[in-house]
Amino acid sequence: MPRLVMKFGGTSVADLDRIRNAALKVKREIDAGYDVAVVVSAMSGKTNELVGWVRDASTPDGSNEVGFHDAREYDSVVASGEQVTAGLMALTLQQMGIDARSWLGWQVPVNTSSSHGAARITGIDTENLDAKFAEGTHAVIAGFQGLSPEGRITTLGRGGSDTTAVAFAAALGAERCDIYTDVDGVYTTDPRITKKARKLDRIAYEEMLELASLGAKVLQVRSVELAMAQKVRLVVRSSFSDEPGTLVCDEEEIMEANVISGVAYSRDEAKITLLHLADNPGIAASVFGPLADAGVNVDMIIQNISEEGYTDITFSCPVDDVARATAAVDAAKDAGAIAYDDMVVDTECAKISIVGIGMRSHAGVAGKMFRALSEERVNIKVITTSEIKVSVLIDRKYMELAVQALHDAFELEKAS
Amino acid sequence: MPRLVMKFGGTSVADLDRIRNAALKVKREIDAGYDVAVVVSAMSGKTNELVGWVRDASTPDGSNEVGFHDAREYDSVVASGEQVTAGLMALTLQQMGIDARSWLGWQVPVNTSSSHGAARITGIDTENLDAKFAEGTHAVIAGFQGLSPEGRITTLGRGGSDTTAVAFAAALGAERCDIYTDVDGVYTTDPRITKKARKLDRIAYEEMLELASLGAKVLQVRSVELAMAQKVRLVVRSSFSDEPGTLVCDEEEIMEANVISGVAYSRDEAKITLLHLADNPGIAASVFGPLADAGVNVDMIIQNISEEGYTDITFSCPVDDVARATAAVDAAKDAGAIAYDDMVVDTECAKISIVGIGMRSHAGVAGKMFRALSEERVNIKVITTSEIKVSVLIDRKYMELAVQALHDAFELEKAS
Repeated sequence: MPRLVMKFGGTSVADLDRIRNAALKVKREIDAGYDVAVVVSAMSGKTNELVGWVRDASTPDGSNEVGFHDAREYDSVVASGEQVTAGLMALTLQQMGIDARSWLGWQVPVNTSSSHGAARITGIDTENLDAKFAEGTHAVIAGFQGLSPEGRITTLGRGGSDTTAVAFAAALGAERCDIYTDVDGVYTTDPRITKKARKLDRIAYEEMLELASLGAKVLQVRSVELAMAQKVRLVVRSSFSDEPGTLVCDEEEIMEANVISGVAYSRDEAKITLLHLADNPGIAASVFGPLADAGVNVDMIIQNISEEGYTDITFSCPVDDVARATAAVDAAKDAGAIAYDDMVVDTECAKISIVGIGMRSHAGVAGKMFRALSEERVNIKVITTSEIKVSVLIDRKYMELAVQALHDAFELEKAS
Repeated sequence: MPRLVMKFGGTSVADLDRIRNAALKVKREIDAGYDVAVVVSAMSGKTNELVGWVRDASTPDGSNEVGFHDAREYDSVVASGEQVTAGLMALTLQQMGIDARSWLGWQVPVNTSSSHGAARITGIDTENLDAKFAEGTHAVIAGFQGLSPEGRITTLGRGGSDTTAVAFAAALGAERCDIYTDVDGVYTTDPRITKKARKLDRIAYEEMLELASLGAKVLQVRSVELAMAQKVRLVVRSSFSDEPGTLVCDEEEIMEANVISGVAYSRDEAKITLLHLADNPGIAASVFGPLADAGVNVDMIIQNISEEGYTDITFSCPVDDVARATAAVDAAKDAGAIAYDDMVVDTECAKISIVGIGMRSHAGVAGKMFRALSEERVNIKVITTSEIKVSVLIDRKYMELAVQALHDAFELEKAS
């Protein structure tokens, strides 16, 4: 029988009513003839509660500091959340007359590395599940967890249940991996910004990766990467409606795509410029080494030669990282590692990106973007491009306007 | 190094402060030179919450009936409670500078039967723990749980954490098994009934068994039976004080015991008498077979010959079972299985028992009991005896008076 993986996130299994609602969706697929592996997250709020307890238990008595914690114990405590949901989902399915059983990471087993709290799946042994499928028993799998070579419970890190689902879809040779969540698909842009935003029927892995990392929080980057590598067809759809959702797939499956698939934005960006920086080989390393050490998430970088022997360097980072960034640069200057005339900080920026595999075969996309923005008198501060993406940094106050203008210019409200 | 098992019940690990308090007691024993295995219950209230979810998930939609539930899933869900506490206890100990790690039932492993919800421990493989003790790592063990031959999580049933603790004490060859709870030991009687009640320094297993089954809810009967069979020295003591507690041990360790160790009571008892019952071989089976089938917990039974060919049968049971008991007897009469003149039901009874291994070597104990009660004009309705126990059924209104009178008569306020 064809196999299907169905993954339900925390809000989709937040209480017993929602678990029952999810179970009804599972039943429908089973009735349609699939062998189903259901992957569940912890009930929403549960993981945070457990993490809070771990933090408190690791805090020295009478102190406000958060102490060191043993990630092995963290994993054992936190993984209990998915254990509870898996059992409850199996019971709910049984109540509906479906033969189902729960599987914990160590029972499957889902073998992982020993990197507790952020373990990597090294292999899934499906022999036990295969045998149960052959008996007509469907599987309910506790997401987010695995087994280390030392026999300890591991977790895959936040959003790890998506990765569990994709990994099982690959290991089981599933026809599809349906990710049920609280949105009903991937949109051309944020519907809160323009009502013209349209749900996409299909999107390529590469596009989804760019959108995911740009802040469209529908899928974890890691699970999309895994799906792309393993050619797992992903569907993002809602737990709370029967809409068909968005298929994330190989670009070969997408005929006649729009040039651009979506417009993404990131609201709280800052731009930092070092003016008249004494230039010499290794100067970029002298600037960005200390920033990396300080944990600053540097995003866009541009460098201009301003005068012989001097350069200007501009980079962007989240507003929250600005204090650390300027301190790191100041310290590098004080230590004599770099020399510059002035540092200009602009914390009122936003980033807008257009993403689409169609760019590969269409020239002039960037030009069209810049023209659309200039017609709205939106000034562009920084530009970066990749094969399927153009990003610009602009004043934050123009963010909504820019998203709307680009959505209109590329006619994203129309299906291809 | 000598080994010690320390078990903390749900109220002793109800929150992080209490876990820290318990951890301090563990630290003290480690500092004193013990290798410690800590056995923990779920945080109080947790198990009930999880059981409630299982019940709800097993209830058909829109129904008030409790549906069938798969005990394997029940166990997997419910065992998560101890998993959380074990991790938090390990983290708390680590925070105090102690090398400790948590062990789940399947990790040790604690091998059990497949009787989910009421599994029996068939063996504990201590090789992994032994190796860790040799490295200086103390053990925190999730109580109440084990691993079935099929690789599923099992639970031992309510109070199973006491049994886990005793089983580990036996398997590890521990010097002692300390059961930390919310009372500071075993008393000669309930201190709420007489202030003269005295905490016992020592009590024999057999006495503890009689007291446990008589309603002194300090230790689970099953864990005492196991301790007796395995000769594990048990100490019942408080999590909330530093009092020494009560040692439950072999009677050979108890020198010069009082004749009587304690007075126990059971408040809500009923007495049912069948008068002028036609007597013939098998009549007892005809009465008590239907009662057993109806789930009536029959306790004391007496039978008198009243007249040639006739007998009176009296038995006691909990007041809550009376309706089922009378219905079962009526049905047996209607079916012609038994014939009697009248059924007399008295729901205003209480049971008082005196327990002590000293009875074996002292004659006249029962007589002294009856004399003490008669001096207070307490009428005795039924008497049963065992080797180390005498129980009487009396009017409930005299219960406190009777307990006080017996406590005085046997001078239980005085240590031997």
